[in-house]
Amino acid sequence: MKPTVGVCYYPEHWPEDIWHEDARRMVEAGIEWVRIGEFAWSRMEATPGVWTLDWLDRAIDVLGRAGLKVIMGTPTATPPRWMIDKHPDMLAVDANGNARKFGSRRHYCFSHMGYREECARVVELLGVRYSKNPFVAAWQTDNEYGCHDTTLSYSDAAQTRFREWLAVRYGSVDVLNDAWGNIFWSMGYNSFDQIELPNLTVTEPNPAHVLAFRRFASDEVAAFNRVQTEILRKHTDTPLIHNYMGRELGFDHFDVGADLDVASWDSYPIGFLSDRLDASEAQKSAYLRQGDPDNQAFHHDLYRAVGRGRWWVMEQQPGPVNWAPYNPAPLPGMVALWGLEAIAHGAEVVSYFRWRQAPFGQEQYHAGLLYADDRDAPGLAEAQKVAEIARGLDIDADARAPIALVFDYPSAWAWHTQPQGADFDYFHLTFATYKALRRAGFSVDIVPASAQDLSGYKLAMAPGLATIPEALIQGAKDAGTLMVLGPRTGAITEEYSLPPRGRPDVEGLDVYVDRVESLPPGQTEAVAGGGAVCHWLEELSGGADALLKLETGASVLVGDQQAWYLGGVPDENLWDRVIGMAAGHVGLTVRPVPVGARRREVGDLEFLVNYSDHSVEIEGETVAGCGVTILRGGVCIART
Amino acid sequence: MKPTVGVCYYPEHWPEDIWHEDARRMVEAGIEWVRIGEFAWSRMEATPGVWTLDWLDRAIDVLGRAGLKVIMGTPTATPPRWMIDKHPDMLAVDANGNARKFGSRRHYCFSHMGYREECARVVELLGVRYSKNPFVAAWQTDNEYGCHDTTLSYSDAAQTRFREWLAVRYGSVDVLNDAWGNIFWSMGYNSFDQIELPNLTVTEPNPAHVLAFRRFASDEVAAFNRVQTEILRKHTDTPLIHNYMGRELGFDHFDVGADLDVASWDSYPIGFLSDRLDASEAQKSAYLRQGDPDNQAFHHDLYRAVGRGRWWVMEQQPGPVNWAPYNPAPLPGMVALWGLEAIAHGAEVVSYFRWRQAPFGQEQYHAGLLYADDRDAPGLAEAQKVAEIARGLDIDADARAPIALVFDYPSAWAWHTQPQGADFDYFHLTFATYKALRRAGFSVDIVPASAQDLSGYKLAMAPGLATIPEALIQGAKDAGTLMVLGPRTGAITEEYSLPPRGRPDVEGLDVYVDRVESLPPGQTEAVAGGGAVCHWLEELSGGADALLKLETGASVLVGDQQAWYLGGVPDENLWDRVIGMAAGHVGLTVRPVPVGARRREVGDLEFLVNYSDHSVEIEGETVAGCGVTILRGGVCIART
Amino acid sequence: MKPTVGVCYYPEHWPEDIWHEDARRMVEAGIEWVRIGEFAWSRMEATPGVWTLDWLDRAIDVLGRAGLKVIMGTPTATPPRWMIDKHPDMLAVDANGNARKFGSRRHYCFSHMGYREECARVVELLGVRYSKNPFVAAWQTDNEYGCHDTTLSYSDAAQTRFREWLAVRYGSVDVLNDAWGNIFWSMGYNSFDQIELPNLTVTEPNPAHVLAFRRFASDEVAAFNRVQTEILRKHTDTPLIHNYMGRELGFDHFDVGADLDVASWDSYPIGFLSDRLDASEAQKSAYLRQGDPDNQAFHHDLYRAVGRGRWWVMEQQPGPVNWAPYNPAPLPGMVALWGLEAIAHGAEVVSYFRWRQAPFGQEQYHAGLLYADDRDAPGLAEAQKVAEIARGLDIDADARAPIALVFDYPSAWAWHTQPQGADFDYFHLTFATYKALRRAGFSVDIVPASAQDLSGYKLAMAPGLATIPEALIQGAKDAGTLMVLGPRTGAITEEYSLPPRGRPDVEGLDVYVDRVESLPPGQTEAVAGGGAVCHWLEELSGGADALLKLETGASVLVGDQQAWYLGGVPDENLWDRVIGMAAGHVGLTVRPVPVGARRREVGDLEFLVNYSDHSVEIEGETVAGCGVTILRGGVCIART
Repeated sequence: MKPTVGVCYYPEHWPEDIWHEDARRMVEAGIEWVRIGEFAWSRMEATPGVWTLDWLDRAIDVLGRAGLKVIMGTPTATPPRWMIDKHPDMLAVDANGNARKFGSRRHYCFSHMGYREECARVVELLGVRYSKNPFVAAWQTDNEYGCHDTTLSYSDAAQTRFREWLAVRYGSVDVLNDAWGNIFWSMGYNSFDQIELPNLTVTEPNPAHVLAFRRFASDEVAAFNRVQTEILRKHTDTPLIHNYMGRELGFDHFDVGADLDVASWDSYPIGFLSDRLDASEAQKSAYLRQGDPDNQAFHHDLYRAVGRGRWWVMEQQPGPVNWAPYNPAPLPGMVALWGLEAIAHGAEVVSYFRWRQAPFGQEQYHAGLLYADDRDAPGLAEAQKVAEIARGLDIDADARAPIALVFDYPSAWAWHTQPQGADFDYFHLTFATYKALRRAGFSVDIVPASAQDLSGYKLAMAPGLATIPEALIQGAKDAGTLMVLGPRTGAITEEYSLPPRGRPDVEGLDVYVDRVESLPPGQTEAVAGGGAVCHWLEELSGGADALLKLETGASVLVGDQQAWYLGGVPDENLWDRVIGMAAGHVGLTVRPVPVGARRREVGDLEFLVNYSDHSVEIEGETVAGCGVTILRGGVCIART
Repeated sequence: MKPTVGVCYYPEHWPEDIWHEDARRMVEAGIEWVRIGEFAWSRMEATPGVWTLDWLDRAIDVLGRAGLKVIMGTPTATPPRWMIDKHPDMLAVDANGNARKFGSRRHYCFSHMGYREECARVVELLGVRYSKNPFVAAWQTDNEYGCHDTTLSYSDAAQTRFREWLAVRYGSVDVLNDAWGNIFWSMGYNSFDQIELPNLTVTEPNPAHVLAFRRFASDEVAAFNRVQTEILRKHTDTPLIHNYMGRELGFDHFDVGADLDVASWDSYPIGFLSDRLDASEAQKSAYLRQGDPDNQAFHHDLYRAVGRGRWWVMEQQPGPVNWAPYNPAPLPGMVALWGLEAIAHGAEVVSYFRWRQAPFGQEQYHAGLLYADDRDAPGLAEAQKVAEIARGLDIDADARAPIALVFDYPSAWAWHTQPQGADFDYFHLTFATYKALRRAGFSVDIVPASAQDLSGYKLAMAPGLATIPEALIQGAKDAGTLMVLGPRTGAITEEYSLPPRGRPDVEGLDVYVDRVESLPPGQTEAVAGGGAVCHWLEELSGGADALLKLETGASVLVGDQQAWYLGGVPDENLWDRVIGMAAGHVGLTVRPVPVGARRREVGDLEFLVNYSDHSVEIEGETVAGCGVTILRGGVCIART
Repeated sequence: MKPTVGVCYYPEHWPEDIWHEDARRMVEAGIEWVRIGEFAWSRMEATPGVWTLDWLDRAIDVLGRAGLKVIMGTPTATPPRWMIDKHPDMLAVDANGNARKFGSRRHYCFSHMGYREECARVVELLGVRYSKNPFVAAWQTDNEYGCHDTTLSYSDAAQTRFREWLAVRYGSVDVLNDAWGNIFWSMGYNSFDQIELPNLTVTEPNPAHVLAFRRFASDEVAAFNRVQTEILRKHTDTPLIHNYMGRELGFDHFDVGADLDVASWDSYPIGFLSDRLDASEAQKSAYLRQGDPDNQAFHHDLYRAVGRGRWWVMEQQPGPVNWAPYNPAPLPGMVALWGLEAIAHGAEVVSYFRWRQAPFGQEQYHAGLLYADDRDAPGLAEAQKVAEIARGLDIDADARAPIALVFDYPSAWAWHTQPQGADFDYFHLTFATYKALRRAGFSVDIVPASAQDLSGYKLAMAPGLATIPEALIQGAKDAGTLMVLGPRTGAITEEYSLPPRGRPDVEGLDVYVDRVESLPPGQTEAVAGGGAVCHWLEELSGGADALLKLETGASVLVGDQQAWYLGGVPDENLWDRVIGMAAGHVGLTVRPVPVGARRREVGDLEFLVNYSDHSVEIEGETVAGCGVTILRGGVCIART
């Protein structure tokens, strides 16, 4: 696979007479793809039913003739104001019961069927008009599902659909009452019509109720997206894509991905570090102008899984952004580093957001590749560098890493619903696992809990996986993969109750979690030989061999040849020990990287990236601060 | 009085065929009491008017025949979902105006008369059916009034009842306007119908308005409870009990207690330390798995007062719980320690919550005496130990401690309404006083502000008592009790205005509080000779003798033979000095205990409890870490 | 101008038989002015249309005959409860959509035309009745506009008026769509009737939308006030005044001031330090009982500008207050210091709030000059001291300071709407500039952005001025004033878009802000030679000379003879350097004052005030702790 570079462009923001020059400069910079259209509904259909698309025809023509391939965005994330007059009840409702008003974006409830029909109407119309256009080479549905906490809506529309969804899932209300354990506080229902959405309850609602609502809401996102993909598939064979938002856990990205050809995500390394990671202040300071060294790679690996091997970065940060609490500028080199790192993880396209900085609206402080006054911004030259280096690369999209890490959206919902310890966070736990693997120098594949074929993986990690599918366990057995489970893996059934055969709910592994402790920040339990458990500690019983013990003598890591179970949240030292032991057990060699540096191996290529601001040595290779070194068969073929 | 042990049990959660074995194991563990029924309305009356009670008949029968005494809970804390269809306006409304929806528990407004009638209906039916049952030996009304902030409701029902309550209290709206000082910001009313509930005002409402609402809301809880006790008294002579929630100040527990035979409370030492005490981080860390060394005793003494000498622990923490921000497990020994400490303070019954851990619903992480899979959990053996030791004890329920401490719910409401310093908290002030008394080795009786007979008390403390009843002052005089008042005692009238004769509003004590300062955290005023004032400092004038002065020369403790007044919130050192001076004045001997250890004397028994994790020496007796030593006439008769 | 002393008095709070004695004691204390009436509507018109004013006639008579001049307050900040029955939709609505209920004060929406008519009715009636009364010598409209966040209302009334206001401003909705850049996320409107208020949007609304709403809301306050001033002007020539609340940025005080004769403000130095300044903990501790040494002076200078030279302190803190999180008492001397400092800055009247402490209502803990029991409170003697010293002073009200500082309300709204860095705060930035000027010993005039005549000013500072009027720049040129602009000056157009010719939008200054960084707390960029930039850093290009550079080599202060531009938020050290350089450039001499001390020069008078608790030396003069020294022509004429 030959990676390329793209950009996001808004012809409707600019006078038509500069489109040609814009296109020429894009091509000159090595850009091959251009995404358009995704916020332009009000320009397409300024009044209901009156379509104005000639400007869009011309824009595509200008871009296409300049040599660019167009990604056409469906504009459904920004319905025009008149739509609210037509469907006043289409607005989502927040957990306090307030309608989330028009005036920004994503102002719709996924469960409003009238709005779904409006979306079908616009997608059909665009599909008919542009699917045969030779310059339109891919489609994006909507924009950043779930962004701004938009997955959950407590609207009447959602309540109606939720009841229907429950009726399908459970068949009868008695089955639902039993499944949820509604006897607990006399919470039983006499009919599905009595079931409300789980907001504004006096104290916490039944976690089974919440988990069902989360599953439903996720299914609604997939159904909403499917309306669009089903229409577009009738008209086109070009790839259908959605641009996911990073660190967004509101819905199951794998489920939406099943209807797509290519997954993509929007990568804002500095914005995420400021706002959306549980990084320490020291970490935030060290990587203030670079972003967390693992966050981008984690998402790259995640969306490679979501896209079943095919994935893009649809929006790549090109300079300072506007939406984080604090918005520093990238250090020189980082815009190129981020692009090349995406390619290292298999991105087919790295598309920068956006071409020219907008002088109006909500994102006036969001950098583009050009300044608002048309001059080159610093990101442009770095994007061009990425395009140049990419031209020399060919990535083996089918290569497997030696280690798999399970990522599972319902687990995030489960532990968010009932964390038991206030700071227990599924993403953080999984991300800490990923970081430990990367500190040890390993490349990683992320896999969903539905994975069955683990062939090629010597080791698979599944921390915090709420419910383990039997097929996953069987897949590991078939492949001879060592599974490292826990903490809090196999801890509940799909209906949010304790598994009848105990935790972890894994057949054959002779270990039981008798009870758990959540520990406040600063409270740790030392492990004999080094490292400690924090946040979460499980009391284990059963006959499996103890591999690590607390200083109190209690087992904290137990297992056999096939599977290990870890009974607590490790600190960094303990993670390093556990990874080292597991790697040793399966014959993998730990190759630690310096602080801030990371390795990604794919086929015969090795990418060394350096998030620190000074050069580092990695096994004899010098990697510049904020730089990338690419080796083929051990020989450097490019560096920044 | 011979203390015994009980447990909370939910036959409706389990297959009927294990009830016998459960009962057998309870008896085997020394358990004598079993509470049932309090959340089972939906099982009793699954559809309106259709009663299904045969299962309950059988459950009582099984338990009773095994030798257990049943406490029958009225199920009014969890009305079934169909009740909301019948009375859609019965839900409480939060301060933002949102109805607090069905889906957890306590989803009712105390002021909804339709729901009160429904409660009367179910209580009458249960009373008729079970009052003659020989195995039903006590009744519990509802469950944890006020829990989850449910005392205050801003519903239409509450507004209607509030207006009626005001009309009764004030007779005419002009009287109310004068009493509240409504001239202040043109806040006067022309009729009771204009008076709204004091939420959502532009800035703070009139504190007199808020205090009246708090009194009303408290009266509503008492009236709600009285509906049940009046019905049950027609049918039974067995004790009527309510299980109060610890650290719950929403309503006047003494008022509800006046209609009960026995007070009880739900004691969760570790949960409270994490969530509901203003303990320092160091304190929270030192007692992470034990709970605060004074919190349980404080509540024991409080509920002994509420029950006029008769009180139980209805729910005792048996292991980790689920509802605090962090939920560590008790250290070995603590489950027994908590039980024995309750007995030391006069508990007739210590009842563990719950028998078996629930595998479904909101409390899946809440320990029981059994694990969900039926195995013994660690708490069981400790509960059994309590039962064994209890069998050898006989507690003098009428013994008085040498020192009384006044606790007053309206004072908590008054200072919460207008703290004047953001961290001024009535509970915290009273609890700090209690702690100082206990560090000095004293046993303490808590008394209400309505107390009149103080005979036997050499010393009575009344910090922060908003309005002092004259009968209390007279009671102290009659008994020759030294009253230590202040800070902020006698500071307002019952209608929340400054007392006409000045603060403190105590006849005969020649001291005046001219003005007050609230001080931010970290700001202190040193007292000559040691200790300091923090948070709150009063400028005193008048002719009473200065007993302690600030280093600035201002008086901070003044008084005469009969009463002292303390003009600031003391730090720990100053509290120790004040207690020491007062004890010396009245001829009591300070017998300090080691950090973490506490003494409780009752009749000829002396209980030494040790909340620290290592053994300590107390006057020659060694008390194990997390252990209890019981002396009779100075001779050890039991230890854990 | 000869300064005098006043007091706020509430005859309706007290028995009529003490009014005479109150008046006598006021006069005895040297008080000349007394404000009354502003919260008394319910006493004036207890039921709709029934007026009771005889008591007010008598109160004015008693006060006037005693020798006091009366300031008559219009009572429109506290409409009686019956008004809400008459106009149920007159309540303001908060950003969550909840009506802000009756029960405190300021419970009205500025945009409700029915309530405006009610206000016109009461003002007309009072104007007719009292304008010819010889004792009524001034009028106050309403009370503390904007206090308790009351400027913004999301009511239906506000929405209706906003649409009308937009129609007037933009003429057509297409013009509005273009001006706001509504194409950005398909946010365009088809008609003004579709435009809603910018609350409860899914993510941030268009900043142009918010800024328009803020301008509208400010205009509404001015229009509301103008209803009253237009009526009163028909009847009286005495000064019309409003008492602004300090640190209140909700509306444009200059716009309201344009309709007044005298500006006044309510000065609570200790309350503000606790609650409304971004002071460090060390600063808050050092000035716990004194208040910030610059906050009062800043507001004095601000309201001197708002009143076009004529201004008062209408409410001066006399002791501890009740409304801040913590409320310490002033150190001895401070009540006098605050009064004299106001006079130093040109106050015509310093009026203490309030005469006697109220024993009821919301402010029972708010000190008066008397205690509630009639005894003298400590503030009385200090107020009397101010009156005595004031008698010997004559202030040149027309004197200009050498330095002007621009203060601009729309800039505060702009940066609050889109701070870009979470802690970017316009008031804080401007206040930090003011503090640096004062540390250097300078007296300062505050001027609005609409200022055109800068004659006499050698230096003018305009940090953070969102949009620079060309007339201001021209005024500086005409006067030969060095303008120091930045950071974030001239950064947006009036319609909240990036200026077409780039930032800063200043003709002739050859500097461009290419991009900006916001930096989290603790992140700084060192400046070569000392000091650092924090919070906010701009990347500058262009041909202007570099005056200061970062250690990285980037320019941070650039300029020419006429104007300088500062590209970041300075820390204290850097501010001192910048002020020193600018002063040197224009020939002003820096005369630093000791920590806590400040200098104010006016005409031939020099006031030295000392906020620290110990004496300091200033150029040979000793100023006592919490004291003031007044020099005339360098000779001490008074000290406290």
